[in-house]
Amino acid sequence: MDLLNKKFLLTPGPVPVPPRALLAMARPVIHHRLPEFSAILKRIREDLKYLFQTREEVLFFASSGTGAMEACVANLFSPGEEVIVVRGGKFGERWGELAEIYGLKPVYIDVPWGEAVEVETVAEVLKAHPEARGLLIQAHETSTGVKHPVEQIAPLTRERETLLVVDAISALGVYPLPFDELGIDAMVAGSQKSLALPPGLSFVALSARARKRAEETSGPRYYFDFRREFKALEKETTAFTPAVSLLYGLSEVLSRIREVGLERLFAHYRLLAGACRAGIKTLGLELFAKEPCEALTIVKVPEGVDGAKLMKLMREKYRVTMAGGQAKLKGKVVRIAHLGYQSELDVILALATLEMALSELGYQITLGAGVSAAQKYFLEAQR
Amino acid sequence: MDLLNKKFLLTPGPVPVPPRALLAMARPVIHHRLPEFSAILKRIREDLKYLFQTREEVLFFASSGTGAMEACVANLFSPGEEVIVVRGGKFGERWGELAEIYGLKPVYIDVPWGEAVEVETVAEVLKAHPEARGLLIQAHETSTGVKHPVEQIAPLTRERETLLVVDAISALGVYPLPFDELGIDAMVAGSQKSLALPPGLSFVALSARARKRAEETSGPRYYFDFRREFKALEKETTAFTPAVSLLYGLSEVLSRIREVGLERLFAHYRLLAGACRAGIKTLGLELFAKEPCEALTIVKVPEGVDGAKLMKLMREKYRVTMAGGQAKLKGKVVRIAHLGYQSELDVILALATLEMALSELGYQITLGAGVSAAQKYFLEAQR
Repeated sequence: MDLLNKKFLLTPGPVPVPPRALLAMARPVIHHRLPEFSAILKRIREDLKYLFQTREEVLFFASSGTGAMEACVANLFSPGEEVIVVRGGKFGERWGELAEIYGLKPVYIDVPWGEAVEVETVAEVLKAHPEARGLLIQAHETSTGVKHPVEQIAPLTRERETLLVVDAISALGVYPLPFDELGIDAMVAGSQKSLALPPGLSFVALSARARKRAEETSGPRYYFDFRREFKALEKETTAFTPAVSLLYGLSEVLSRIREVGLERLFAHYRLLAGACRAGIKTLGLELFAKEPCEALTIVKVPEGVDGAKLMKLMREKYRVTMAGGQAKLKGKVVRIAHLGYQSELDVILALATLEMALSELGYQITLGAGVSAAQKYFLEAQR
Repeated sequence: MDLLNKKFLLTPGPVPVPPRALLAMARPVIHHRLPEFSAILKRIREDLKYLFQTREEVLFFASSGTGAMEACVANLFSPGEEVIVVRGGKFGERWGELAEIYGLKPVYIDVPWGEAVEVETVAEVLKAHPEARGLLIQAHETSTGVKHPVEQIAPLTRERETLLVVDAISALGVYPLPFDELGIDAMVAGSQKSLALPPGLSFVALSARARKRAEETSGPRYYFDFRREFKALEKETTAFTPAVSLLYGLSEVLSRIREVGLERLFAHYRLLAGACRAGIKTLGLELFAKEPCEALTIVKVPEGVDGAKLMKLMREKYRVTMAGGQAKLKGKVVRIAHLGYQSELDVILALATLEMALSELGYQITLGAGVSAAQKYFLEAQR
């Protein structure tokens, strides 16, 4: 029975959906070729520009975030072209897989998992590859919790024909990534992250030169064709049937984000991440990422504790779902999400659950120590 | 105010969503890598097999139906291969566009809009093109309301290396298209048609030989890669983050379909289509399609009536949204949908609205004549 089975979702996507958005999505579906839909679309387009901090258009697709990543590779480059790929986690690998599948020539910058790429390395590789047509990177590598220095890398790609393509799936709306100001060419996002919606929508903001590039490339694409979407937007619609109910939710969430304002949103995530890390350190546990992102806190599973058992215990006994490690980090880390619809008290309950579960698995820990460190952090931040 | 603004959606996708499914989709999102999600997935997979009448796997994607059409073209054929495309409407054209974009060599069978392809013609073209790797067709061409004779065409493709790829986006669940029995190789569907869900999910059933073919082809694909999805299903999950809330709705609708049974569902649509056509004929109006499908009734806009004005009047004054014509049929036809969450009384109100609007535009019509013909049809059918 649900009453005795209350669940908490603390994974970096999906995240809990605010009731207001759930209700919006339960509204009756309307037809997408009507003025009524165009009106919703118009608001969404304006609000997406606010969120991406751009004057350019933000396209969206009914797909997961991977679809929008594929869209960038398929639209912005032609087979045979060289692209530089920063590969420091599962999603960096995904850029590489996409580039290879589309017949591009990826030049890899391999970065140890848990570390950010060095700006100097990127500068050197760019210099060594003057023909590179793109640089593909994650703003925040969700698998390792690392924030790559997109802000410092962006200027390196401005004066040359290298498009900067940023996977911001778990970064957008979490910390400042002003699209126009930084001069990013393409930035990808997904609905189930900071937007706190169910999965099923993906986004791509495109600079003027990226939009132009999409007119010149030769690779195959249809469903994810940027040109078709731009053409459809001229008629205030989408190229293919859009995911209407998810767009209702999006409209709701975006207007809430405008009300709150990006600055307060960013400050909120800084606060949650800071408090969580204060708690983790007080517990004597180790953080995984060297340049951690506010989107989530990754904790190393301590020596002697079975990572799989830990996750299972938290999920089954306390009904708290955090994320484990992906690929080579499987069983080695716990990922606690802050992005999306999460509050100070979600940090508290995450720490409390981790404490209880570790203790139950025989790991020496002072129950409540992490929690109280986070509490102190919150109280001090309020002053 | 909504109270005075009740709306009726009678387009062939999207269709109204049953409240039970709307509520299911408003349930809190869960993480898609958990046993709880696998349990939902398991039921969905079984129920999809029932709906498609197959023992094979039915894959699904977070995308519109076009995404699944693209998936078939990208996975089942390699660039340079010959495919036969039946082109008798907007969606036949879409198969052709996809084939061209993916570098296939389409051989077109052009059919006048409003007519079904002749089985003999298909047989001749197949004979003339022994190397053809696929035959791409619509079961029901949504733009013209025509049902192509897939049942008779299917046997022609069995004894040769030509995969039969059927767009059943607006046909699945409307009339019998037993996948295994007919020997179809790939059949595409979408959530916003007979499944009565919001747009955002697409489906593809695949025969054993289509699945094998997908292992051998060389074209680029990633998000829509069948091989990745089959591999993920072995682990009871999906390759990429699925549209969780839409899947909740799907699970709800599919179990309702199993309760009702396909036979009753098909009989329901036959009844609605029959009654609607009886009404239209009594009004002296003309049907557009020669081999009409139960999914929708297409009525020619009578001489002297402005099609755009007619649609606008019905939509704005009566808040009834039917579909107009697409592409070369723009302004020339009205499409009344029966598929999805539609009942006998939806047919009645569609006819009544059409009568009032035509009358208001100065067209000579006996108010209520179409309605009463449909009523009689329903009463006689009940005996």
